[in-house]
Amino acid sequence: MNINDIAKQTGEWLKDEGPNADIVISSRVRIARNVKDYPFYHWAGKKEKAEVFSIVKEAINTSKYMKNSMFIKITDLDEVDRLFLVERHLMSREHAVTDEAKALAVDDREIISIMVNEEDHIRAHAIQSGFNLVDTWRIVDTLDDELSTKIEYWYSERWGYLTACPTNIGTGVRGSVLMHLPALVITNQIARVLQAITKLGIAARGLYGEGSEASGNFFQISNQVTLGRSEEDIIDNIEKLINQVIRRERSAREYLLTNNKASISDRIWRAYGTLKSARIITSDETIRLLSLIRLGVDIGIITDINRKTLNELFIFTQPAHLQKIEGKKLSSTDRDMKRADLIREKLKVA
Amino acid sequence: MNINDIAKQTGEWLKDEGPNADIVISSRVRIARNVKDYPFYHWAGKKEKAEVFSIVKEAINTSKYMKNSMFIKITDLDEVDRLFLVERHLMSREHAVTDEAKALAVDDREIISIMVNEEDHIRAHAIQSGFNLVDTWRIVDTLDDELSTKIEYWYSERWGYLTACPTNIGTGVRGSVLMHLPALVITNQIARVLQAITKLGIAARGLYGEGSEASGNFFQISNQVTLGRSEEDIIDNIEKLINQVIRRERSAREYLLTNNKASISDRIWRAYGTLKSARIITSDETIRLLSLIRLGVDIGIITDINRKTLNELFIFTQPAHLQKIEGKKLSSTDRDMKRADLIREKLKVA
Repeated sequence: MNINDIAKQTGEWLKDEGPNADIVISSRVRIARNVKDYPFYHWAGKKEKAEVFSIVKEAINTSKYMKNSMFIKITDLDEVDRLFLVERHLMSREHAVTDEAKALAVDDREIISIMVNEEDHIRAHAIQSGFNLVDTWRIVDTLDDELSTKIEYWYSERWGYLTACPTNIGTGVRGSVLMHLPALVITNQIARVLQAITKLGIAARGLYGEGSEASGNFFQISNQVTLGRSEEDIIDNIEKLINQVIRRERSAREYLLTNNKASISDRIWRAYGTLKSARIITSDETIRLLSLIRLGVDIGIITDINRKTLNELFIFTQPAHLQKIEGKKLSSTDRDMKRADLIREKLKVA
Repeated sequence: MNINDIAKQTGEWLKDEGPNADIVISSRVRIARNVKDYPFYHWAGKKEKAEVFSIVKEAINTSKYMKNSMFIKITDLDEVDRLFLVERHLMSREHAVTDEAKALAVDDREIISIMVNEEDHIRAHAIQSGFNLVDTWRIVDTLDDELSTKIEYWYSERWGYLTACPTNIGTGVRGSVLMHLPALVITNQIARVLQAITKLGIAARGLYGEGSEASGNFFQISNQVTLGRSEEDIIDNIEKLINQVIRRERSAREYLLTNNKASISDRIWRAYGTLKSARIITSDETIRLLSLIRLGVDIGIITDINRKTLNELFIFTQPAHLQKIEGKKLSSTDRDMKRADLIREKLKVA
């Protein structure tokens, strides 16, 4: 498999399957691990980074999960490809910085991605469609077992797994979900809800992780604490909190349907009309409109489109995705026109 | 014919026929006349107003033009009907004030309307689709001849026809056209163009005459001076100036198509998408969107709708028209919903 194969497929996590897939787009679990006797990436020299690279690469090669995977050096990717992988949630923005020692491994279904020599030597993620953290954790856990037969990790009896950043010490586990919370935003409850969960050790971020803003009512919600608890406890804790957020979003949707049906229908239909008609559209506006249309599908106002198509539009209309589809670098203006064309094509309007 | 028959038809002036009908929606000519030996309306007593009413009514009854006309007292109309006739451009807002002596006569094709006891005893209008001031003047002139066989007008050898307001003294003739000038607005030339013609004794007003604002790029343009020239001269002068405005608008449209096609197409298609999708829409927004769509039809960007349908939407979506169609008084919120429904029905979208 190579990066162009990925550009042609939708990715497991966008399939709109699994529990509560209307509100939770995807569930992700990641672990942070480091190879024993080597300094953390930011302290390591060129030779040490290269050795870590080889050790991790070999371990990945023997994993059953990663049999048909892509293993690629970041320096072998051009700017568009690197941004493409970030948009696809397969690697972090930080990992896109070119360095000989950095690599990315992705399995053929885009369930597992492993960043080599990111902040930690190994950042392994599993992602699933819908609200499925326990299953997702099991995948990462099994992968972790596989890798650990080949690699000895930095580990302390007292602290657990040692990581470059103290916030990841202990289990190194972060569970996160990508949630769509339009009704909580529209009814002005979102700040209160996010504040409440933040106090319980949960962080809410925008679409592309730390430092990014929430656009189109999409939020990344994840645990902050990785220390002093078992992996299962961490996953269980975030599951419970997310379940509460899901319930809140559902009741906000019911409230809108009961008390504001006319005005919310109007907003949703206008968004749909604009998306079907625009000839020039930014990626930001696209996400905002898709968010409203998605809400429309969820609450039964729009019936002639499904969430899978919306998920596809959501991912394929992003800047690097558009450029991958066109097979060339495009100016921002050209992208805004190609994006509008692609959307009308997918929505089968003239 | 009665007012409900009018509500069911479109009106001659909205037929989208005649020269330059893409830019000039309609041409109107009106004369102001007063019955000799009676004080002007605002100075007349109840008895005098009633006598004027009878004299004018009788004269209208004998006109060939007005054979199948509606003749209605303003006091016999409810609030919605009065507003309906104003929206239909059949009478002025001022004439909608209830007074026993006020009446309106309209012929069955809505070409001629005569206000009895408006500011002047007689305000007779003819209206035609497209840019057709000379023909329209001929209709009014003939009607004037007919009426003057039955009524002796206030007339002075020195001043011409005497009118309540000095600005109408002389011929009492005002020619006006309803123009659609979106390209001049979009290219920021409109202020300069209107300023130039204003200096030449031409006034530009909004959709509903004096004091009303231009909405959706529609402008009423008419002569100010009625004195010291023949009727033919007045009509000829305004014809020439309007022709210049038409040329300016045409070249602004060409400019947009040559230099801004992508962005103007985007604006036009978005307007169309919104109009086809909205579930709640004000009359103001409707006119703004219709204006852009009309431009789209004119410059060949939109091809699946014709201007006649747009003209119909333009008139039937107005508040009193909506209430006539529904057969009852509607709240503003209800109107905004009914308007959206009517539009989608006319545009044949679900």
